[in-house]
Amino acid sequence: MSGISAALKSRIRRPALFKKLMDPKDTLQFFKDGQYIGWSGFTGVGYPKVIPTVLADHVEANNLQGKMKFNLFVGASTGAETEDRWAKLDMIDRRYPHQVGRNIKKGINEGRIRFADKHLSEFPQDLTYGYYTKDKPNGTNLDVVVVEATAITEDGGIVPGASVGATPELLQMADKIIIEVNTRIPSFEGLHDINNSRLPPHRKPYLIMAVEDRIGNTAIPIDTDKIVAIIESDRPDNTGPNHPADATSKAIADHLIEFLSHEVNHGRLPKHLLPLQSGIGNIANAVIGGLANGPFEDVTVFTEVLQDTFLEFFDSGKLKFASATSVRFSPDGFQRFYNNWEQYKDKLLLRSQQVSNNPEVIRRLGVIAMNTPVEFDIYGHANSTMVCGSGMLNGLGGSNDFLRNAKLSIMHTPSTRPSKTDPTGISCIVPMASHVDQTEHDLDVYVTEQGLADIRGLCPRDRAAVIIDKCAHPDYKDQLKDYFEYATRKCLAAGMGHEPQMLDKVFKMHTNLMQNGTMKVESW
Amino acid sequence: MSGISAALKSRIRRPALFKKLMDPKDTLQFFKDGQYIGWSGFTGVGYPKVIPTVLADHVEANNLQGKMKFNLFVGASTGAETEDRWAKLDMIDRRYPHQVGRNIKKGINEGRIRFADKHLSEFPQDLTYGYYTKDKPNGTNLDVVVVEATAITEDGGIVPGASVGATPELLQMADKIIIEVNTRIPSFEGLHDINNSRLPPHRKPYLIMAVEDRIGNTAIPIDTDKIVAIIESDRPDNTGPNHPADATSKAIADHLIEFLSHEVNHGRLPKHLLPLQSGIGNIANAVIGGLANGPFEDVTVFTEVLQDTFLEFFDSGKLKFASATSVRFSPDGFQRFYNNWEQYKDKLLLRSQQVSNNPEVIRRLGVIAMNTPVEFDIYGHANSTMVCGSGMLNGLGGSNDFLRNAKLSIMHTPSTRPSKTDPTGISCIVPMASHVDQTEHDLDVYVTEQGLADIRGLCPRDRAAVIIDKCAHPDYKDQLKDYFEYATRKCLAAGMGHEPQMLDKVFKMHTNLMQNGTMKVESW
Repeated sequence: MSGISAALKSRIRRPALFKKLMDPKDTLQFFKDGQYIGWSGFTGVGYPKVIPTVLADHVEANNLQGKMKFNLFVGASTGAETEDRWAKLDMIDRRYPHQVGRNIKKGINEGRIRFADKHLSEFPQDLTYGYYTKDKPNGTNLDVVVVEATAITEDGGIVPGASVGATPELLQMADKIIIEVNTRIPSFEGLHDINNSRLPPHRKPYLIMAVEDRIGNTAIPIDTDKIVAIIESDRPDNTGPNHPADATSKAIADHLIEFLSHEVNHGRLPKHLLPLQSGIGNIANAVIGGLANGPFEDVTVFTEVLQDTFLEFFDSGKLKFASATSVRFSPDGFQRFYNNWEQYKDKLLLRSQQVSNNPEVIRRLGVIAMNTPVEFDIYGHANSTMVCGSGMLNGLGGSNDFLRNAKLSIMHTPSTRPSKTDPTGISCIVPMASHVDQTEHDLDVYVTEQGLADIRGLCPRDRAAVIIDKCAHPDYKDQLKDYFEYATRKCLAAGMGHEPQMLDKVFKMHTNLMQNGTMKVESW
Repeated sequence: MSGISAALKSRIRRPALFKKLMDPKDTLQFFKDGQYIGWSGFTGVGYPKVIPTVLADHVEANNLQGKMKFNLFVGASTGAETEDRWAKLDMIDRRYPHQVGRNIKKGINEGRIRFADKHLSEFPQDLTYGYYTKDKPNGTNLDVVVVEATAITEDGGIVPGASVGATPELLQMADKIIIEVNTRIPSFEGLHDINNSRLPPHRKPYLIMAVEDRIGNTAIPIDTDKIVAIIESDRPDNTGPNHPADATSKAIADHLIEFLSHEVNHGRLPKHLLPLQSGIGNIANAVIGGLANGPFEDVTVFTEVLQDTFLEFFDSGKLKFASATSVRFSPDGFQRFYNNWEQYKDKLLLRSQQVSNNPEVIRRLGVIAMNTPVEFDIYGHANSTMVCGSGMLNGLGGSNDFLRNAKLSIMHTPSTRPSKTDPTGISCIVPMASHVDQTEHDLDVYVTEQGLADIRGLCPRDRAAVIIDKCAHPDYKDQLKDYFEYATRKCLAAGMGHEPQMLDKVFKMHTNLMQNGTMKVESW
């Protein structure tokens, strides 16, 4: 490879690696149908952009659709031009543990892609345990791992970009490593905190006692002999615009902030709260936006992903420090972040997802966790992943890493979602969740724009009364009450009324939706 | 109170406390209808035996049934002569977080007792967070906490008996403390490891790197000013006989031990295995019995409860050390334990349930967790608590503290349970679990006497094929296959076939059981 750009030269601080520089097309030699491969990336940032595209172009140009398929492992989702294009070109056999995209979702639900979701903190450790590669014909490592770096250090360490995710463990499990050095975006050096991933019985405590505590290094150590190619990338993370808050999400945020104030007043939360975890989407944006204008000072965040509203939160002076595994800003948000780098860089850090989502740390810190489900039921089980029990959306993500281990576990959702066939919409509160990702044993508080149900300390029947009363949409409230009363009468009489359910009617709202386009039920 | 027995005198090493000695009947003054009270105890050992009986006698003698009801908090279950008798006398309003007994189960399922189950590691911390007492009219502490001690130290510390459970946190939350000093059983001093329970943001790591690591003291520190009465108890823990292994449980144990050997051979487990967690019951007994005669040396245990078979395991020389929160031996087992105290005492320790079941420690150690569900489904969700989705058995217990955080998460059950109305029995493998306590995201391996299904790395449809093939009873195999194939065809065609379920038929086996006494289904 002739002519190394000055930009690239400044990012690769180990000159011996210059000889591994390669034209992207020449990396095709390393890929074969059936391989187990890994990419860096998490929530659509920090993923390799060039090599996946070269491979997709190759498949498309040579009509190899369905003939060059991979087992693909990435910490979470990647940009649409990579995993979703691969899905469209039938290049994905197996995919773990999360994904986003129209085509990949279609491939999964039509049976072409063998997908499974897993708690995001557990995926990297299960990978290092060999659980995903145990039936691989040739060894238990991943054949090729492609990672994006914003710099390579003197000793060959990888400085990631906008996410850490599962990259340390993917690299640890790699036979061959390909590095895309991204010169389009600034070096993120100093922002990451990366620790070694050790296996039992040699695993050590994660000594994080506060969100800002660092326990590792600023780059991922690798065996440089495994590097087979380094290429230059000039492509940005392909994120979309931010999801602004709307009236519904603002109403939810208001209920939540009122509740948090109430907890502070009753001494169950300290006045600076406890570290917050917040999911992705417009409700999360409304909540964080609300906090930026809210009554709490010196707030901290221990979460998975930071979105644009966190920039507002920093700028408000009320957010003291944030820890995450990825910064998923909009293109405008990234520009603002880069332009004010000096202002933000000492107030946040990025950890591997095994640490950002770790039960040990979440429980120790007493995190306040807030996530959005697809639906939840009257007894407090939540469905975060599936439509009508069968159709995968994106996957579990880190929701139950946080909700299970948090001091306060909060689920927020509009009481209904829009429907093409019913103007009232689809009820997000149902008799029984059609798939259970979070159980009644995991959750404390449910919020919709209608109100907030605090079910701590309540038995299932008392929970149902509160959840229906506070959270259900007025158009569904009576039918949920009717179900609950009918089920309670019937099950108590039968001497099995701890958590009354009528198994022959419990999914009637769902089956009615599938058959008649509405969740309205005339009678039970 | 006149005349302190020599036995009692030797157990109370703080003479200033002699003046608190009281006749058990005189403690009635401290109890009132509607109070929030706590007892020591876990899995029917280490609970107070005298005061609960005095109260029950009082209610019975004065026809106070239903007029003297309590909110009762105990780490787990207690002996039948206490909580179950209370339930029979309608003395329990609320009960958290686990229970055992015919009358208490009846009271819960007929709606007289407001029960909720909770991960056993989380119950004590939620108690200290104030989640169970937040709506209490007079302050947020428990009104009276009654604990059994086998000794009281010079500084007033409580030395528990055969369990630690939630006793440290219950005492921490007590307004008044009553101590039953049990002189019938030996002092357990030295066997416990008790650490302070701190709240976020001041919580510290649990620095347990191996099962034998001690992080605390041998007694529970208390504020001695809160002691309102000390009484002498001469009653043993009211445990039943051991559940011996039968042919089915032995077959399950054989499958499991073969699997563990396979994992060692493939380098996914070290040759001494990793610390084992094992539930209660005859399958657990068969597994531990099998290990006592098995190929593994220097095995360690990090579990919740030790049963009689652990004595065999110790005696075999193959069990190096065991950590738990209770020793629930049979009367014969306890005698053997006391007779050989010197031989066992340095090989085991008892921690609080917040530590024995802690996600942090379980995950760090890489525990191998094994538990028995009521049923599990073809995609890998398990029901540990409920009959036909509505009727409570005993509660969640610590099952998902361990299964979620273990390196290997194993569920074992006979493929069928006995039924009075169907000679084949009730299938423990169903299309969809009628209640979900452990999700598909939590579990790795399912075992019945028929075989073992290793579902690590498999997508839901692949899991279903393996689970039905390896685990289902022959009499149910075809109908489960038929369901799965039908659901797959239908859901894939509809473009929602990630985890194929037909919501209108999914509980047909359960409803058929309730209506016709059999889980056999003629057609789907």
